[in-house]
Order: sequence, then C-alpha cells, then structure tokens
Amino acid sequence: MNLILLEEEDFFSASVVRLTGRRLKHCLEVCRVEIGGSLKVGKINGFIGEGVVRYFDDQRLELEVQFDQPPPAPLEVTLLLALPRPKMLKRVLQSVTSLGVKRIFLLNSFRVEKSFWGSPLLQPEQLREQLLLGLEQARDTILPQVHLRPRFKPFVEDELPQLCRGTTAFVAHPVATQPCPSPPGGPVVLTIGPEGGFIPYEIEKFQECGFTPISLGERILRVETAVPVLLSRFS
Amino acid sequence: MNLILLEEEDFFSASVVRLTGRRLKHCLEVCRVEIGGSLKVGKINGFIGEGVVRYFDDQRLELEVQFDQPPPAPLEVTLLLALPRPKMLKRVLQSVTSLGVKRIFLLNSFRVEKSFWGSPLLQPEQLREQLLLGLEQARDTILPQVHLRPRFKPFVEDELPQLCRGTTAFVAHPVATQPCPSPPGGPVVLTIGPEGGFIPYEIEKFQECGFTPISLGERILRVETAVPVLLSRFS
Repeated sequence: MNLILLEEEDFFSASVVRLTGRRLKHCLEVCRVEIGGSLKVGKINGFIGEGVVRYFDDQRLELEVQFDQPPPAPLEVTLLLALPRPKMLKRVLQSVTSLGVKRIFLLNSFRVEKSFWGSPLLQPEQLREQLLLGLEQARDTILPQVHLRPRFKPFVEDELPQLCRGTTAFVAHPVATQPCPSPPGGPVVLTIGPEGGFIPYEIEKFQECGFTPISLGERILRVETAVPVLLSRFS
Repeated sequence: MNLILLEEEDFFSASVVRLTGRRLKHCLEVCRVEIGGSLKVGKINGFIGEGVVRYFDDQRLELEVQFDQPPPAPLEVTLLLALPRPKMLKRVLQSVTSLGVKRIFLLNSFRVEKSFWGSPLLQPEQLREQLLLGLEQARDTILPQVHLRPRFKPFVEDELPQLCRGTTAFVAHPVATQPCPSPPGGPVVLTIGPEGGFIPYEIEKFQECGFTPISLGERILRVETAVPVLLSRFS
C-alpha cells in the first residue's frame, strides 16, 4: 500500500477523513503512524496529496488531507484478455492496474474453461478489490473499467469493430511470424489469448477487425508473465 | 508443462525413457496420451525433440525419444535480485526462467527481511523445482544458475566488479531520473531492489561499479511485475 485510497464515505468533513479496517491496520502496523506524521493519500478517481495524522486509536484514524497532484498518466492500451483461471486473474488484474491500463475486457474463448465464468471473483465488489490493490501499489487513483464478455461471437462481431477504430490493434499469438513491434504511438488495443492460445477461427475474427498477430518468440509464457512483457513494449 | 523435461536417470536405454510421478500424471490427465501418440520432450541442459508413446499404465509411461532441435536462445541478462518474500520468489523464479535468464543472484539488502534467508525454498532441490517449472513452461532445457549472496558488502565489493566487466549494468531505482533505455546490445546486468527499494548506500555501491540507476516512471511496481517489464526491454 504505497498510497492510501480514500472513498467518498471516508470524508468526515471536506478536509478530514476517518479510516477503519484494512487501511487503519496498515497505518498502525506497517506505517507505524504518529500524531503529526504524514501519509500519501489519494481520492479514488481524483487527485493525490498528503494526509496529516490528527488522531488515532485501535478503532479509527483521523487524517487532515489536502490534494495537489494529478495521478500518473494512464497507459493508452485497451486490454482484451481471454478469461484466465481465477487465481491468475487476481494477480493479472493487480499487475495490469499497477501498469496503468484503464480499460479491460475479459473475453470468452474456446479454450477458456466454462467454470471460470462462475467464479465469485467476477462479482463487481471483488473485481474492485483487486483493482484497488493495483492502484495502491502504483500510487494511482483512477479505477480501470472491467467489462465481462462471456460470449465471443457477439463481442467480436458487434462490438469489436467500433472498439478498435482509430487504434493499432494486436493479438498475441504464439505461432505468429511477426515479432512484437516498437510502440506505434497513439492508442493500442492488445489481445492476449488463453492458455493454449486462441483457435484459428478466433484469430481470423481478430484479423477481420484489423488486428495484427504478433509473437513473443519461441518461448511460451504464462499469461501473468506475458501481460507485463507485452505492456512494457507499449509504455 | 509445454515440454517434458528428462533427467539422466529417466533413460532406460539410449532412446527409451520411463516416466513416473508428476510427469506421468500430466501425460495421462492433461495430455491424455495414446499408444503411438507423440509428446514434446527435452533433455535437461540438452536438445529438444519428440517422444513417441510405446507403453503406459498407471505406474509408468515409456517413450521412444529422439532429439533434433537446440533449446531457444538464452537472454543475455544476468539478474541481481534482492531476495523477495518466498511466495513471490517462487513466481519470480518461474517467470524469469521462462523468459530465458540463465544467471540469477539473490542478494541481501537492508530492506530484505532476515527471515527470508531461512526459507526452505532456498534449498537447492526446491530452487531447482521452480526452475524446472519455468523451463517446462517456455520449452527450454537449460537450467539457470542461482547464486545466493546473503552478505551485501562482500558481494558488491569483491565479486560485483568482475561480474559486470564488459556488460552494460543497470539498477532499477524508483527515484532515478533516467528512464529505462533501449536495449544496449551485448550482455546486460540488471539489478532489482527489494520492496521499498535499495537504500542510498546500496545504490552508491552499485554506482561505484558502473551501474546506471534507471526508473520505470512514477508507478511503483511489485517485484513480480517489475521483473518481466524490465526484462522485456532487454529482449
């Protein structure tokens, strides 16, 4: 937690916030706050600033806050990700958020196990928790939007053409011959398939929308490794 | 497991191997092998090829093997990593291995918790297990060398000057002003600090050995995200 993220309901007045629960615990046990000490704070979807400790006990902590800096610039990449298994999804959402991606689509694909779509992790509150962890890590405040697309065909046929208009669009595909290019400049749409890759029909659908299949070389990477490797090329 | 890695003791004869345990289970349950079917195999520290299934039951599987391809090219990066917490170390070792790093030093640093050095994960057999998982993922056969350096000062003073001779050397440091450069060509030594970063004394020690501090920008990344992001810039 490199930044304490504040929600609307934390504000006791315009410049005073009260923390409880996980953030209180962090302030007491990790930051070992003292009265008068300061902490880095940020308003969710707003500015970043400082909070000065006015009061604390084991039930709550009060900070006098002011906000003077914008959050770091977002990464101009829309990420389309074949839904990974829940345990991996958690880590991927956190790392993607920490890297500054603001728009994420979780897609179905032939090789996505059906049971993954039933994971409680896909509930809005649980998704939000992973995103907050990524923001706290990277000292960012702007929550990414996560869109679930459990049906592949309607997504690629009805929504994808509009979504990738005006962007450079890539689909990572192990057997592609073109290596990952240098950053093209401007917005990018990046698609990463499931374990085992997209099937040929799915790759064709992306190609029909103007996606270029790109390869990371001979090595087959886990999704959680491939995602930061690819995003690194576009930042 | 995108490649079945074979040890010396798996060879029943020059071209026949017998698998048991984890690899047998994978062949039966994930690959669903049949007699005459073929599997991608590789000799540890050797070539890659095909294995044709000659026999299997629930106790063992026999493959007739031949080897005809070299493993993928290694990444010419020596990674110096402040020892992360054991759970993260597992994932980092796997991802670093899958990305082709062949030389890893795990270092002490002021902000490395002492207890991490007592982790059973640092035993040679357990380290090897993580490396094998990374190789199996990336279809590589060459085991990385992992060196433990639980004392910082002797390492940087007595060993580091020799180790980074003839290389371009970087230390990732959140407050550095120079952004991560384009791949310099030739061998690279890349150092990544602990959570919270190296202390100024430690950064100075690296600078004395010719390391350039580089930054990944405002965002603070977890080690498991920073490692693939940085390695991606040098591949």
